[in-house]
Amino acid sequence: MKILTFAGSLRKDSLNKKLCGVVSEIVKKNNLAEIEFVDLQPLNIPVYDGDIEASTGIPAGVQQLAQKITEAQALIICTPEYNGSIPGILKNTIDWLSRLKPVSLAGKPALLLAASPGALGGVRSLWHSRQPFDVLGTQLYPEMMGVGKAHETITPEKTLNDAKLQANLERLVKDYITHAKKLV
Amino acid sequence: MKILTFAGSLRKDSLNKKLCGVVSEIVKKNNLAEIEFVDLQPLNIPVYDGDIEASTGIPAGVQQLAQKITEAQALIICTPEYNGSIPGILKNTIDWLSRLKPVSLAGKPALLLAASPGALGGVRSLWHSRQPFDVLGTQLYPEMMGVGKAHETITPEKTLNDAKLQANLERLVKDYITHAKKLV
Amino acid sequence: MKILTFAGSLRKDSLNKKLCGVVSEIVKKNNLAEIEFVDLQPLNIPVYDGDIEASTGIPAGVQQLAQKITEAQALIICTPEYNGSIPGILKNTIDWLSRLKPVSLAGKPALLLAASPGALGGVRSLWHSRQPFDVLGTQLYPEMMGVGKAHETITPEKTLNDAKLQANLERLVKDYITHAKKLV
Amino acid sequence: MKILTFAGSLRKDSLNKKLCGVVSEIVKKNNLAEIEFVDLQPLNIPVYDGDIEASTGIPAGVQQLAQKITEAQALIICTPEYNGSIPGILKNTIDWLSRLKPVSLAGKPALLLAASPGALGGVRSLWHSRQPFDVLGTQLYPEMMGVGKAHETITPEKTLNDAKLQANLERLVKDYITHAKKLV
Repeated sequence: MKILTFAGSLRKDSLNKKLCGVVSEIVKKNNLAEIEFVDLQPLNIPVYDGDIEASTGIPAGVQQLAQKITEAQALIICTPEYNGSIPGILKNTIDWLSRLKPVSLAGKPALLLAASPGALGGVRSLWHSRQPFDVLGTQLYPEMMGVGKAHETITPEKTLNDAKLQANLERLVKDYITHAKKLV
Repeated sequence: MKILTFAGSLRKDSLNKKLCGVVSEIVKKNNLAEIEFVDLQPLNIPVYDGDIEASTGIPAGVQQLAQKITEAQALIICTPEYNGSIPGILKNTIDWLSRLKPVSLAGKPALLLAASPGALGGVRSLWHSRQPFDVLGTQLYPEMMGVGKAHETITPEKTLNDAKLQANLERLVKDYITHAKKLV
Repeated sequence: MKILTFAGSLRKDSLNKKLCGVVSEIVKKNNLAEIEFVDLQPLNIPVYDGDIEASTGIPAGVQQLAQKITEAQALIICTPEYNGSIPGILKNTIDWLSRLKPVSLAGKPALLLAASPGALGGVRSLWHSRQPFDVLGTQLYPEMMGVGKAHETITPEKTLNDAKLQANLERLVKDYITHAKKLV
Repeated sequence: MKILTFAGSLRKDSLNKKLCGVVSEIVKKNNLAEIEFVDLQPLNIPVYDGDIEASTGIPAGVQQLAQKITEAQALIICTPEYNGSIPGILKNTIDWLSRLKPVSLAGKPALLLAASPGALGGVRSLWHSRQPFDVLGTQLYPEMMGVGKAHETITPEKTLNDAKLQANLERLVKDYITHAKKLV
């Protein structure tokens, strides 16, 4: 199984890109699957504008991301929380992806995680992020996990510095992959 | 009272920009308040990236929009529905606005409306759009209205071609403005 | 495969109980699975009160429902919309079910449908109803369907009197059962 | 101004009833308003059933609560979180209240708070609880507050044993009452 992981954030030091790294380590160390990380920043996906789509088509970055999603059998998406909800960045990416038919996200198993500097771990973003994926037919795993105080919790060694949390994340990733394998 | 109205959509023929027009006509015709429409397209607001903010600051378009919001006493926002939720465009605009302190949206009375080509009138977008505004302290009016089949319903004369719907929108706009005047 | 279907409504002439009937016909006519309908009304599930639970335990009706859910391999739940959200009846039933461990709803594939006398077909209830099921680990199917003007649309012959809608419901039920069979 | 406060929980030792007590102390100590607490448990509100309503009418407990809401100028509602959402108890109470016209909750200013034994303070319940109130036209205050680990945080002296949290709750209650006074 090939998994694609990406973060709903663009900046270089994104906590959610780092969480993708923690997850990738878990997948590799336990030989659970192949896993590839894709950084949205160099894809240069613009703000959606129907007139741009009509005149110059779907941007190359959107097409590249859709291609990678199509080639993967499962997704692990790490999302920040901006203003108590899904970041505009992530929603805008979903909006563009939905314009390429067949929609790459349709029917794809996906796990949602969040990293946040706050105490609540991005829980409001996780729940709001489910809806557009559900609408597009993505097979979201019911369980999710938000990593709070992520600037302190995620280590440079790509682990969580709380043994219980790390064990729980490992358990969740394993459960999810077992589940996803039933669906592909 | 000065009202600012804008749409969460960029394209020239946006149904939601047209709905802003219908609302503006109602406000003017009934001498309810001053009302100004601002088009987000020429503001060129980029996708949020913390590194851009750190290196070059808040984009000029965001600052202009924040200034207009600050100068208004009330807002009327018309939002499309993309993939069953708030459009990335609108959420991205909110995310940028939240970076300019004091936050222009905080404490501001606002009415949410939606126009959609579908039968449900953007109801899922309306409900998801409330959350980030609530988080920022915007005083959202409880009642909302979604205009379905908006490509047929909105006329070039800036009315809704369904007398009952038009009357209901007029009633809602009047109720909202009466309410907003209590809060300023 | 054995499917259990129930409605989040108690009254005898419930539109959602009738929608369970439409779905049961589809399942039977196409030999898709076994299907059993359970009426929540005679189960007499009281409003949740932790003191009742502590003194007299989980009510018999909750235990009977949990037993039926456990014995089924998949669920089809039809929910009304009350005040723009999940009915208290359905949420209260879920709350009681969550007290019996292991939780019968955990890991169970489920399809959510709604019937409503209004034009929007219970869409706000469908989306709010997902969250408690997701929290309990129910494997909700991403696609849902709301039947609007259900008092006119559902016939005494247990069909929808709109051929396109009936065909779409049949397609959805078939797709869901194909999916659920992968998960059991 | 007369404020009514109640909790979406029935059991005697409810953390949310205790949070109503903390809030009542703040209101009284600072002479902000009159405040009355109403316990939902003795009101004996049954699970909503349209057939019961048709045969025996709105239960007396619902009528009593509606009367108290009507007589108050503002509400402070403390809600638990059950299964990541609004408790069935609270939603069922709202559903019954919506059957008595004019709806007592319509236009009424209200503040939502939550107490929870968990770390997240009931944040998912707070956000889900807004929707039915919004639908009924309740004027919900945008800011909310969830008290996590409430079994440890709420003291028998009706305070929060975290000075910063207590100060923040006092500030929120004061801000809310100032706001509500503008609306009545």
